[in-house]
Amino acid sequence: MAGHTVRSFDEELRHLRDIIARMGGMVESQLALATTAMVKRDVALATRVVETDPQVDAMDREVSHHVVKLLALRQPMAGDLRLIVGSMRIASDLERIGDYAANVAKRSLVLAQNPPSVSYGPIERMGRMVQEMLKDTLDAFATDDAAKAMSVWRRDEAVDEMYSSLFRTLLTYMMEDPRNITPCTHLLFIAKNLERIGDHATNIAETIHFAVVGEEPEGERPKGDTSSLAAADVGGSSDAS
Amino acid sequence: MAGHTVRSFDEELRHLRDIIARMGGMVESQLALATTAMVKRDVALATRVVETDPQVDAMDREVSHHVVKLLALRQPMAGDLRLIVGSMRIASDLERIGDYAANVAKRSLVLAQNPPSVSYGPIERMGRMVQEMLKDTLDAFATDDAAKAMSVWRRDEAVDEMYSSLFRTLLTYMMEDPRNITPCTHLLFIAKNLERIGDHATNIAETIHFAVVGEEPEGERPKGDTSSLAAADVGGSSDAS
Repeated sequence: MAGHTVRSFDEELRHLRDIIARMGGMVESQLALATTAMVKRDVALATRVVETDPQVDAMDREVSHHVVKLLALRQPMAGDLRLIVGSMRIASDLERIGDYAANVAKRSLVLAQNPPSVSYGPIERMGRMVQEMLKDTLDAFATDDAAKAMSVWRRDEAVDEMYSSLFRTLLTYMMEDPRNITPCTHLLFIAKNLERIGDHATNIAETIHFAVVGEEPEGERPKGDTSSLAAADVGGSSDAS
Repeated sequence: MAGHTVRSFDEELRHLRDIIARMGGMVESQLALATTAMVKRDVALATRVVETDPQVDAMDREVSHHVVKLLALRQPMAGDLRLIVGSMRIASDLERIGDYAANVAKRSLVLAQNPPSVSYGPIERMGRMVQEMLKDTLDAFATDDAAKAMSVWRRDEAVDEMYSSLFRTLLTYMMEDPRNITPCTHLLFIAKNLERIGDHATNIAETIHFAVVGEEPEGERPKGDTSSLAAADVGGSSDAS
């Protein structure tokens, strides 16, 4: 409420956390709405998600500018510095998640015109899984909870596996009936978008871990996506990934 | 050659620029090799590209650590600060480009097993286009050339348009012959990877512009990708993008 232009360093950090939290909430809601728009074939809702995207982009730029200003005017050290630099990374991951959610919404516009004859069940489940990951990541950021962040990190493998399995299933549907090709291709890209959202949530989890603990998480990031090597009917390509 | 551990600030900045240049060169070569591996069905080459990816990831982390150290120990101002913070963004974009190149290589392993009955011509052209964009971006970074960076920025629209057109063509091939479905789906994702590489080169161009000039490029980023709204045979969906 105060009209002060001079804020204390703590207030500046608080402000930075607030922008990220608001941006996170916005992206969370976009992702949930995009999934709903797809399943319900709700064109108006899908359009709204697409139209909200520029706001998220603008917040990413706001974070960047704020970070550069903070670094220039204060000389943050250790944990504060990691938080400030980490915020820029997190905002950029959130911005990408917003883009992917908008793309899901765009593709659900086509799906509303060319409804596939396949169940939305698996892709909806995948959507819910990455929504949970994003939610827990944002909670972990708000509470500096490195352990919670790591629980997200470990869940990414399950999303990757779901994606690989969905990829094969969709290819098989396309083989069975050429009328499935257009809608299933869009479902394939929607699944890919969700998988990428999981990756970005995992990036954010890593950034939080580094900001809080001062070290990268130990070990390789678990990976379950073998779809790049998939042929339609579970063609047993020896996995190089 | 000197064994000094204390470097001048200028030397530190020079070192940062060197890491980015080396990382850029590595990613450039990965992208070129991945495209060649695809066209020539060269399994050994594709495997090499996939195996190089962790090196690029390690360089991204090296840049982050170096940036955090520089920010903590020096108090960079204005242009130096923008360069330092921008380097972190550029490294992260390069890391993503490396990932996409590795994914092209992975998918070309499947394509070598399931060769599509379609010409590689258009996708090879798209590959060359984004290679040029990446090259010019790295040149612009090395010479602080904001105008050259902007020329890359403007070229992204053509890549998007190429991708949209390729997307429709590939869908049509899949409709014509179900045996095309598996290989053309991988080609579809390869095209998407190349389109994303174009986006990341464009991100880097924006970062260079900001680092050199101190301002974001003016105007909206030109966009030509309408594939999210595409049905197979140029289904005239009114474009919302």
